[in-house]
Amino acid sequence: MSEKKVPYKIYLTEEEMPKAWYNMRADMKNKPAPLLNPGTGKPLTAEELSPIFCEELVAQELDDTTPFIEIPEEIRDFYKMFRPSPLVRAYCLEEKLQTPAKIYYKFEGNNTSGSHKLNSAIAQAYYAKKQGLKGVTTETGAGQWGTALSMACSYFDLDCKVFMVKVSYEQKPFRREVMRTYGASVVPSPSETTEVGKKILAEHPGTTGSLGCAISEAVEVATKNPGYRYVLGSVLNQVLLHQSVIGLETKIALDKYGIKPDVIIGCAGGGSNLGGLIAPFMGEKLRGEADYQIIAIEPASCPSFTRGKFAYDFCDTGMICPLAKMYTLGSGFIPSSNHAGGLRFHGMSSTLSQLYHDGMMEARSVEQTSVFEAAEQFARVEGILPAPESSHAIRAAIDEALKCKETGEEKTIVFGLTGTGYFDLVAYEKYHDGQMTDEIPTDEQLQESFAKLPKIG
Amino acid sequence: MSEKKVPYKIYLTEEEMPKAWYNMRADMKNKPAPLLNPGTGKPLTAEELSPIFCEELVAQELDDTTPFIEIPEEIRDFYKMFRPSPLVRAYCLEEKLQTPAKIYYKFEGNNTSGSHKLNSAIAQAYYAKKQGLKGVTTETGAGQWGTALSMACSYFDLDCKVFMVKVSYEQKPFRREVMRTYGASVVPSPSETTEVGKKILAEHPGTTGSLGCAISEAVEVATKNPGYRYVLGSVLNQVLLHQSVIGLETKIALDKYGIKPDVIIGCAGGGSNLGGLIAPFMGEKLRGEADYQIIAIEPASCPSFTRGKFAYDFCDTGMICPLAKMYTLGSGFIPSSNHAGGLRFHGMSSTLSQLYHDGMMEARSVEQTSVFEAAEQFARVEGILPAPESSHAIRAAIDEALKCKETGEEKTIVFGLTGTGYFDLVAYEKYHDGQMTDEIPTDEQLQESFAKLPKIG
Repeated sequence: MSEKKVPYKIYLTEEEMPKAWYNMRADMKNKPAPLLNPGTGKPLTAEELSPIFCEELVAQELDDTTPFIEIPEEIRDFYKMFRPSPLVRAYCLEEKLQTPAKIYYKFEGNNTSGSHKLNSAIAQAYYAKKQGLKGVTTETGAGQWGTALSMACSYFDLDCKVFMVKVSYEQKPFRREVMRTYGASVVPSPSETTEVGKKILAEHPGTTGSLGCAISEAVEVATKNPGYRYVLGSVLNQVLLHQSVIGLETKIALDKYGIKPDVIIGCAGGGSNLGGLIAPFMGEKLRGEADYQIIAIEPASCPSFTRGKFAYDFCDTGMICPLAKMYTLGSGFIPSSNHAGGLRFHGMSSTLSQLYHDGMMEARSVEQTSVFEAAEQFARVEGILPAPESSHAIRAAIDEALKCKETGEEKTIVFGLTGTGYFDLVAYEKYHDGQMTDEIPTDEQLQESFAKLPKIG
Repeated sequence: MSEKKVPYKIYLTEEEMPKAWYNMRADMKNKPAPLLNPGTGKPLTAEELSPIFCEELVAQELDDTTPFIEIPEEIRDFYKMFRPSPLVRAYCLEEKLQTPAKIYYKFEGNNTSGSHKLNSAIAQAYYAKKQGLKGVTTETGAGQWGTALSMACSYFDLDCKVFMVKVSYEQKPFRREVMRTYGASVVPSPSETTEVGKKILAEHPGTTGSLGCAISEAVEVATKNPGYRYVLGSVLNQVLLHQSVIGLETKIALDKYGIKPDVIIGCAGGGSNLGGLIAPFMGEKLRGEADYQIIAIEPASCPSFTRGKFAYDFCDTGMICPLAKMYTLGSGFIPSSNHAGGLRFHGMSSTLSQLYHDGMMEARSVEQTSVFEAAEQFARVEGILPAPESSHAIRAAIDEALKCKETGEEKTIVFGLTGTGYFDLVAYEKYHDGQMTDEIPTDEQLQESFAKLPKIG
């Protein structure tokens, strides 16, 4: 390879790192619909939310007018332990694909949680500490969020209770062990330690759990124990706000080299990565300053954007959480157990749902065998073993680059590489052994699930 | 925390990265003793070595006069995918320890092999490709080297056969799966696929293998198959040469901020990391330009520097490899099966052995329970889950920093953080569950092992 004008990895200096998060909602004409009280059907007030969430996080959750919110110095200091994350020019992938496209990825996996989740975990732990709380509760599926929160709580000396979806608890003992290293207590969900857990176990004795069920348990424990609050790693507005650091760093790095992306691609489960990555670009688009093609990629097995309904729904199985208006498959929807690719939440961030509804972005779904094929191809040339979640974005980026090869277009593609796959090797093994299948929900399944949507809003 | 003059992480630009490796031997008055032919007892010639190793690597192995050897552009390009690695100022650890010492670590874990091993793997694969070979063979214990080599071979489209110590093969299926992702074939050792493997299996039917045994198998396959050569991830002079990129980057980063280290600490198994980290500093010391306290840290369960003999010995169990003069516990020595901390090779790099023998560096041994204690303490404040190997250096760095706390000295401590512990969570679990013990060899065991040293040199 010859000399490169743009380095393989663009790192910002610590001075160049963002000092404020960007709140997309401030620039949205159609604001995301408010969270509703499931009892009254009315928008939730700060007072109603504060037994669940920390005060400052409630304020961030409800604030849809302030464009920039300062990142407290303590959080910026913590960020410096693992940020800035590199914006990588995928020279090797480009060469392998023989594409005229220029491919960049923002790599968030260089920290022990293995993903971008730490960006919001440390913020939420900071506000809990500042409020003088004893600890926080949460749920985790694959374990990335639980690990991130354990790290953040350990740093601020907060107690951390993690409800881990039972099937993951059993199949991912190593994730559990990392959380233990950081001093968290990890409980398999559903458990006998909560009312909602007992109820679910009584109704479904053999259940291996779900994210929605673990959320219900974590919320119950937070609201019943003084000095505790609940924290969530995705979906919420506050999470997208914290994650905007991904997109802000990306934009600063691109601007340094005078690069304007044509296509921005992110994987989407609850929306934390996608919302963070696209934030400043979407801001320009909302303000009419620039245009970008923004694409959300989701698994065909859990296709909330592409096949879901835009409606008010519960975020949890126990139906004790607020109602959010979002693209949803129904709070009872659980993807096929064959689905190994992550991104298995039934709903989607209200903010992203509104943007998608307004035509500000596209969405596509991809099947997991093609996702793992892209993951392996990427690993071999770029040297990073990607998380299955991130590999959805890789799949789409490769597809876009191959289209450019056909048309000769020299598009600049940016995608989010949210994390590493070190704890997903059972899934990789399945793929290598030819045991991986693609199972997508039937229309009948979805109709049945939609029929149970709450009749509100 | 207030404003920091030195950033949390010092990254070099791609232009600042080293363009040549540094060869410590060129500045040594007492050169490391040559490899001997076990048959004749005479120094091995390039002709004798070239059926085992690639030609250019043989030249590098034997060259003890050229101080700088250019890093080929293709290797520098590959380096840019995962290098420069950050030199991290451990502000959070310093604060936790309340020490006046300034602690820095060079973190080599931000790549999929999870360690510094990739620095030499890519160089060895490059020279194999350049020579027109079909593939390479090697052994791996914990799997870091095997993973690194798989990545490198995949990049250059070379076949890669890895003999993996059987106990690791069975206990670390995920490491195996990563190698498979990169297209390597992984064989549990001892195996029925080699003469030496069959012999060892016949003599010790239930054996779970050892590094020395896997080396013998890999060498046999390389020498019997046209178009194949053997590559090794540690001990050899060529490996230390490639790994000098660690120390060179460290020195450039420190110089940028006008920092002169007082103490340099590295963990030592075969010496690849230690030799690489200390290279340019040792160079200054050898040339009388500067002085540094250089400390090798090894496990008390496998104490080659601190309790071994400085003598000619085999590098492998099958005794088919050249003889090297080194600090050794005897080629039949196998650390207790309770030893979870890695660094389990019976010998030590000839170069480092000579330097230690000449009083140019110190060595200490540490027990594994105290190593895991340091690992957990480090993980909680610095946010990185360290490999057990690397944690030996952490243990020593913390001990040095605590000494400074007592004396009030503001020493600058630099240590090598060779990798991450994502594949070592069984060991962490053992530690958390209080199941970890310290078992160090008795004097009688060592005497018995020494009695079997070859009577040469």
